[in-house]
Order: sequence, then C-alpha cells, then structure tokens
Amino acid sequence: MFTSATIDRELEASVVFKFESFQKVGAFKARGATNAVLSLTEDAASRGVIAHSSGNHGAAVAYAATIRGIECTVFMPTGAPRIKIDAVEGYGARIVLVDRPVLAESTHAAAAESGATFIHPYENVDVMAGQGTAAMELLDDHPDLDFLICPVGGGGLISGSIVAASELAPHLVVIGAEPERVDDAYRSLRTGIHQPAVLPADSIADGLLTVLGEKAFDILRASHTEIVTVSEAQIVDAALFHLQRMKTLVEPSGAAPLAALRRLGSVVAGANVGVIVSGGNTDLDWLPE
Amino acid sequence: MFTSATIDRELEASVVFKFESFQKVGAFKARGATNAVLSLTEDAASRGVIAHSSGNHGAAVAYAATIRGIECTVFMPTGAPRIKIDAVEGYGARIVLVDRPVLAESTHAAAAESGATFIHPYENVDVMAGQGTAAMELLDDHPDLDFLICPVGGGGLISGSIVAASELAPHLVVIGAEPERVDDAYRSLRTGIHQPAVLPADSIADGLLTVLGEKAFDILRASHTEIVTVSEAQIVDAALFHLQRMKTLVEPSGAAPLAALRRLGSVVAGANVGVIVSGGNTDLDWLPE
Repeated sequence: MFTSATIDRELEASVVFKFESFQKVGAFKARGATNAVLSLTEDAASRGVIAHSSGNHGAAVAYAATIRGIECTVFMPTGAPRIKIDAVEGYGARIVLVDRPVLAESTHAAAAESGATFIHPYENVDVMAGQGTAAMELLDDHPDLDFLICPVGGGGLISGSIVAASELAPHLVVIGAEPERVDDAYRSLRTGIHQPAVLPADSIADGLLTVLGEKAFDILRASHTEIVTVSEAQIVDAALFHLQRMKTLVEPSGAAPLAALRRLGSVVAGANVGVIVSGGNTDLDWLPE
Repeated sequence: MFTSATIDRELEASVVFKFESFQKVGAFKARGATNAVLSLTEDAASRGVIAHSSGNHGAAVAYAATIRGIECTVFMPTGAPRIKIDAVEGYGARIVLVDRPVLAESTHAAAAESGATFIHPYENVDVMAGQGTAAMELLDDHPDLDFLICPVGGGGLISGSIVAASELAPHLVVIGAEPERVDDAYRSLRTGIHQPAVLPADSIADGLLTVLGEKAFDILRASHTEIVTVSEAQIVDAALFHLQRMKTLVEPSGAAPLAALRRLGSVVAGANVGVIVSGGNTDLDWLPE
C-alpha cells in the first residue's frame, strides 16, 4: 500500500494505492488466472489450458499452469508489446501470434481440437472472483474507504471488486476508469444496453481495449457503478506521475485510475479513496521525448 | 522491503532490497539531513542552513529545513538533472547554480557571510548517523543478513551502515558498490591511503561522483569493508532490471549495488544479502533507445 502526499494535497483527500504492478506476473491478472486454473478438475487439468490475451492474462494463465504443472497455450495479437510476449514465454507457455480480429475464434478452434480448457480473461466467474481479492486486501487494510477506483477493460477486475466491496464495505462507491477512445462500458451503463466493442480499438492503455463482458455489465449495472472516461494525455500524465513522483513503473492501463481520480477533483475532497493500479508491464514507448 | 525471485534464482541467494527511492525526497539523504538539522541548537537554527549538492542532499536539507521551519540555501552544480533542481526548489529552498569545481568554496563563502550552518553531505557525524538508520531498519527486519551492499560516493551511507551493522549484526560483511570511473574509495582502501578525487569525475551514477570523505575512510578501513567496482554498462543493466522486472524507478547511483551484487556472483551463493537502493531521482536519460 502506497500513498502520495502530493496527490493528497492536490485533491484534499486521503488516497491509498494498491500496486498490482508488484503482483506476480506484474499485474492483478495472476489472481483470477490462479483461482481459475487451481479450480479445474484433475481430468480437465490433465488436458491443459488455453487462453488469448494482449499480454497480462496470458502471462497469468501461463504462471498458474506452471503452479499446477500443466500445459498451456496462449494466443496473442500480433503487435503485442515485446515485454509481454517475453513474459508469457518465460513461464513456459506455447505462444501463437494471430491478428487481433481473429484472436478469439482461433483460440476457440484450438481449444476444441486439443480438449484444453479455455480460460476466458474476464467472462469466467472463477477469474472474476480471483480478481476481486485485490479489493479484498485493500479493504482489509482500509475498511473506511469511501471510493474505490479500478480500470475497466473486460470488467473482471471491477466486477470482482464490486462483489468484494458489497460484502466488506457496502457504503463504498466503486468507480471505473476507462479510456475515452474505448468508452463502451461508459456508454453501456449510460444507455442501460450492453454496447458492442469500439472498433478499431485504439488507446495507449493496451490492457483496456477489450469490450466490457456481459457478466461484468450485469454486475456493474446492478451496483450503480459510475464510469469516468479519461483522455490519452491524462493517462500519460498519470503514468508519468507514478514514475517520476512515486518511483514506480505503471503501464498506461494501470495509470487510468489515477487519471480518473484527478478528473473527479473536488468530488473526492475530504474522502478516503482507494486506487487499484492494475499492472506494470510496459515497453515505455508512451514516454514523452 | 522487496525481493526478486529472478535475482534469487540468478545468484542462488536470498536477496532483500531496501528501496530508499520510496523515502521522503526520493533518497536516503532525507535521513541524515533530518538528523543534522533537527540536532541544531535554537540559536544556530535561527540563522538557517546552507548546503551544496548534486541534488538529493540538497532536497533533503531543504526538506529538513521545512520541518524545522528555518531558511535554507542550496548550491547546485550547473548541469544537475532538472528533476533534482525542481525537487529542491519544491521544498522552498533558495537555489544558487555554480560550476562544480567551485561548488564547495562558493558554499562556504556564502555560509561565512550569512552565519547559516553548513550541512556537509557526508563529513558530518549527525548526517552519517542518520544515514545509518536505513541499515538499522533493514537489520531489524532481517537480522540474519550475511552481506549488506551500499553504494559509495562520499561515504555517508556506507559508514552509517557499517556502524549500525557493527552493533546489530557483528558478523555482517558490508560491501561498497562504486563506479569504475570514480574508484577513489576502492583505491583508498587498497592502498590504505586516502586518495584524492578522480578528476574529471564522470559517471552515469551522478550521485557517486564525490570523493570518499576522510571520516568515512577511517570507518571503512577499520571495518575491513570491501569495495566492488562496476562499469557504466553494468549500472545501466541493473537500473533497467529494477525498472522492467521490479517495476521501480531507481537512479543509476541506486542501481550500483545490484550491479555489484551480480559481479559478486557465486561469492554470495547460499547467503542472505541486503541491498540498499539509495534513491530514485533521475531524468531517465540513461535509458537505452
């Protein structure tokens, strides 16, 4: 748990950061994947696991498969950051690179052929429950939080957090941070109808390009969660703050919550705020000259 | 306290890192400066304090002066990293930029004129004692350390660490990490005679350009401390490891201990090693393309 006197002064709030960048595989995804892979029956586990991912979920499933001692294949989009490809490879998974539009169908075809269990990055209740343990730990240490800010991509982290908070801190308001450029979750909650993916999905926050899952949408809608959208420049500013002032490397997706917090401004004055920084796997190509 | 499974595997050792980059002002220097400034008599304090610094000590004295509510002037070398100048300014100190060769004499002249107390960055027993509290905290948590590795510049951190370790862990071997390019401490201990500064002092580890202090030399020599020198490339590799694998921003001076640890290689196999990462204030201009 980290704090920043600068942020507290800027917002006149008390802010605690949960750095999932220091988590195994450098991201919260280790939580959900481990929960899902360790929950498999012996029979299913013996046929291995398969996943598709822009990076962190792939590393997480590969890591979880190593713990369980089973085979793992990860489909990744061509153009994924080198550091993320290396990480998945480092955990001993077999990697298949395909174009992003055919990522899901290629993975499902391979799963059908091999009998391996497909571990969805977010539309999987074991994954969602696992991701919620980050918020559980934060609330164990800080039960008095008024707001909790998470990034929103597929929605596994925020929906797990909402379920955890509903038990541990029913008064807590969960806020999702989403890039303006891929604002499907914002529009889904605004219209009450699950919106399709923004295409082409394009944001510096490469971990948040995925469309909000149906399961996550149901949880978000029922909980009256708010989404705050942030610009590309606000995301970069926040990532720079984490790096230069807090001395921690955060990937752009993980910096979106700090960007959203700053946009909230006086809304959080006087409040206790928790921020989940989702991961730290990045090539640094977002650094200004 | 942080660990890295990758480093433990690489060295077959158990390594704990103390990140002073997360300290106030982003470096261990906050410890010594605070101890020295808070130890001043009321009368001395009323005339303010003055310091010279390539950056971290200046920010630390400015920070300590703010705590005590007294005036502070910091002389800095022209060409100091912008981020360090900004930090000193941010604590409300008056900054005077002069060329590095006349840094000390300009500061002393200004101190004589104003009556402000000069706070030396390392040839000051209150400063040295304050710096030693980093090792004290590390040894409180890990009393079983066999080795402790610190960077060596002026020698305040390592001499404070040696004194702390001599009380708390008499069996502990303290190792200094020094850039090959400014290896005066290495040559001083090797010859038994205090060596003059390497001129021109030039290393990417800008916090370690200062010559080893006389007081520190006496403490190092009496304790049979070893110095391991490291190349510029080894320092950059270590800083990259801290950034990419441990997700923490470390300045090159702060990465020198990890570089030295890797050079020690099999010497530390099976041992418990503590590493003091001295600071995290850097412009990132050492990042490879």
